[in-house]
Amino acid sequence: MTAAVPSALLADRLRRAGDAAATRDVDLLLITPGTDLRYLVDAGGESHERLTCLVLPATGHRAPPALVVPRLEAPGWAHLPLAELGVEIVTWNDGEDPYLLVSDLAGGPQAVAVGDTMPAVHVFGLRDALPGCTQDLAGPLLRELRMRKDTAEVAQLRAAGAAIDRVHARMPEFLAPGRTEAEVGADIAAAIVEEGHASAAFVIVGSGPNGASPHHELSDRVIESGDVVVVDIGGPLPTGYFSDSTRTYAVGAEPPLRVREAYAALQDAQERAVAAVRPGVRAEDVDAVARVRLTESGLGERFLHRTGHGIGLDVHEDPYIVGGNALPLEPGMAFSVEPGVYLDGAWGARIEDIVVVTDDGCERLNTRPRDLVVL
Amino acid sequence: MTAAVPSALLADRLRRAGDAAATRDVDLLLITPGTDLRYLVDAGGESHERLTCLVLPATGHRAPPALVVPRLEAPGWAHLPLAELGVEIVTWNDGEDPYLLVSDLAGGPQAVAVGDTMPAVHVFGLRDALPGCTQDLAGPLLRELRMRKDTAEVAQLRAAGAAIDRVHARMPEFLAPGRTEAEVGADIAAAIVEEGHASAAFVIVGSGPNGASPHHELSDRVIESGDVVVVDIGGPLPTGYFSDSTRTYAVGAEPPLRVREAYAALQDAQERAVAAVRPGVRAEDVDAVARVRLTESGLGERFLHRTGHGIGLDVHEDPYIVGGNALPLEPGMAFSVEPGVYLDGAWGARIEDIVVVTDDGCERLNTRPRDLVVL
Repeated sequence: MTAAVPSALLADRLRRAGDAAATRDVDLLLITPGTDLRYLVDAGGESHERLTCLVLPATGHRAPPALVVPRLEAPGWAHLPLAELGVEIVTWNDGEDPYLLVSDLAGGPQAVAVGDTMPAVHVFGLRDALPGCTQDLAGPLLRELRMRKDTAEVAQLRAAGAAIDRVHARMPEFLAPGRTEAEVGADIAAAIVEEGHASAAFVIVGSGPNGASPHHELSDRVIESGDVVVVDIGGPLPTGYFSDSTRTYAVGAEPPLRVREAYAALQDAQERAVAAVRPGVRAEDVDAVARVRLTESGLGERFLHRTGHGIGLDVHEDPYIVGGNALPLEPGMAFSVEPGVYLDGAWGARIEDIVVVTDDGCERLNTRPRDLVVL
Repeated sequence: MTAAVPSALLADRLRRAGDAAATRDVDLLLITPGTDLRYLVDAGGESHERLTCLVLPATGHRAPPALVVPRLEAPGWAHLPLAELGVEIVTWNDGEDPYLLVSDLAGGPQAVAVGDTMPAVHVFGLRDALPGCTQDLAGPLLRELRMRKDTAEVAQLRAAGAAIDRVHARMPEFLAPGRTEAEVGADIAAAIVEEGHASAAFVIVGSGPNGASPHHELSDRVIESGDVVVVDIGGPLPTGYFSDSTRTYAVGAEPPLRVREAYAALQDAQERAVAAVRPGVRAEDVDAVARVRLTESGLGERFLHRTGHGIGLDVHEDPYIVGGNALPLEPGMAFSVEPGVYLDGAWGARIEDIVVVTDDGCERLNTRPRDLVVL
């Protein structure tokens, strides 16, 4: 993955993480490779049996910030502005105990928080090297930071949105009667990479009755004229930021009136939910707007899932746009708005845009037509 | 990934895992998605924030074997012979606490062992749901099983070896003066998939001086006539079993005598190390055979790494063929034999075959010529 974040922004993220730790009486954050590490130092590293771990003290704690890495892999970290950020690289050799090295750096912590994805082998290695110290999750603390995107992150999500929109724009090349979902999916996956993603993380082509299953991916079903087809696609840019956008297409022929009517209700529900997004509105309120609108059209029971999920370095992250989540939206929060309707055994439809909350509403990062286009 | 393991073999793996747990006074194994789960039930699942967990009791423990899965994902597990294996699928819905569900199933364990790669979020969820119960790693116990391959596994590794050999056979299509390592690498990656792998997990093309760095992958260096080029490639089959094979090529012209002499010593070292593999020989002895032979030719200091690593569902796993590992080899153990020589700033070479220990020696799973072929 390529680095892209100005070091002033990284310094700000590290400072806010240290502040958040201090607020929660956590002495140290211990973060192994993954998206939390990528967020904090703009490099993810690889997670494997050798320990790589960011040791990030709470603001005011005595330990120095350090990145513990296997000596063999130190060259891979040399391009980062770690010295400028006040983070020392500390290497260890095969045969040394990296957990004791962390313990030596840690300055006698009483409470550490480890990244949610840290593998058990490292969790227990650190537990045994820091006896008497409590271990909890860093996720609840870091998600407070990560769900409010800074300018560099919004720029990446905007670029990801434009890239996946270019793939949807090419759908007439791919989607046609007589082709299987798997054939169409393979072409779409290649286009996702061609349009600038590092990989195609997911490709859902749900044709005809398969569209009625929100978790359907690809099958050998041959697409027929008259099918309604759900296409939900995305992947990470080289920087790690994800795209995710769904459009629903009609293939070969206009669908019957009852389908067009239900689709019109869905489109209106998505439009209203997006229009409801602004600072201070609760996440669950956005969900309710879509749900109420579909219920008015007798489709409430056909909307089987939450309205959306946050997106960033993870394709699913906070905030979740779901009943029960009273979180007030704030500028910089980025998430999907993706109501759907699923008619068992017959057809399904979903419309999904990523939006970023602005000072007075939101910016849509996906702008392809939302009508039921006939290809 | 596709399923391939006869259920009698899966039953045997589950039984041996239960026996191993009982021997070590572990009441339950708790295994989340990853290669350990794939080994035990022939399906890996996906690791994410929702808990999927195999609850496997030690032989004699009262808890029933169960696979806890999110209800949404239950259809993805329906193809497995779990009922036949005596493993009940237990589903949970969003909003329920899956850790308490495991606790209810667990029958009051005193000691559990969790998979080495289990994410901290699940480690702590289970810790809090099983108060007073110790948590340790399942890895030391499962690696005893996993490093002794059964017939289905050897068949998969043999197929993986044949697939990567077909890629090496096509090297004259890819490797030529005037092309960059990155261009060659992209072609090789495509060929790895064309020849039957699920993906290209790693592609090292180390040309000229880049070959002197064992961890080099790809660069924009243009390959020149006379270069020696290390090509170390592999990936997983759709069943998850990995290939990994290195050959070294001379491009465009025969290299000078000193290179050919050093290469001949390397080839002899690899040959002798493979010939030394048989039941009862210690892992470190195989390493020593290669090291002593290279030292005789004054190249001992140029052999910078261990001689090999186990391979299976993970590309690096036990047994490691390295000084200090006194493990006696047994039939069914599969690992690489890959000595190399690295001449700083000039060139490097490595020869790597996967071997499986047989009753009286070993079977090589890679059979491409090991001479310094001039392309």
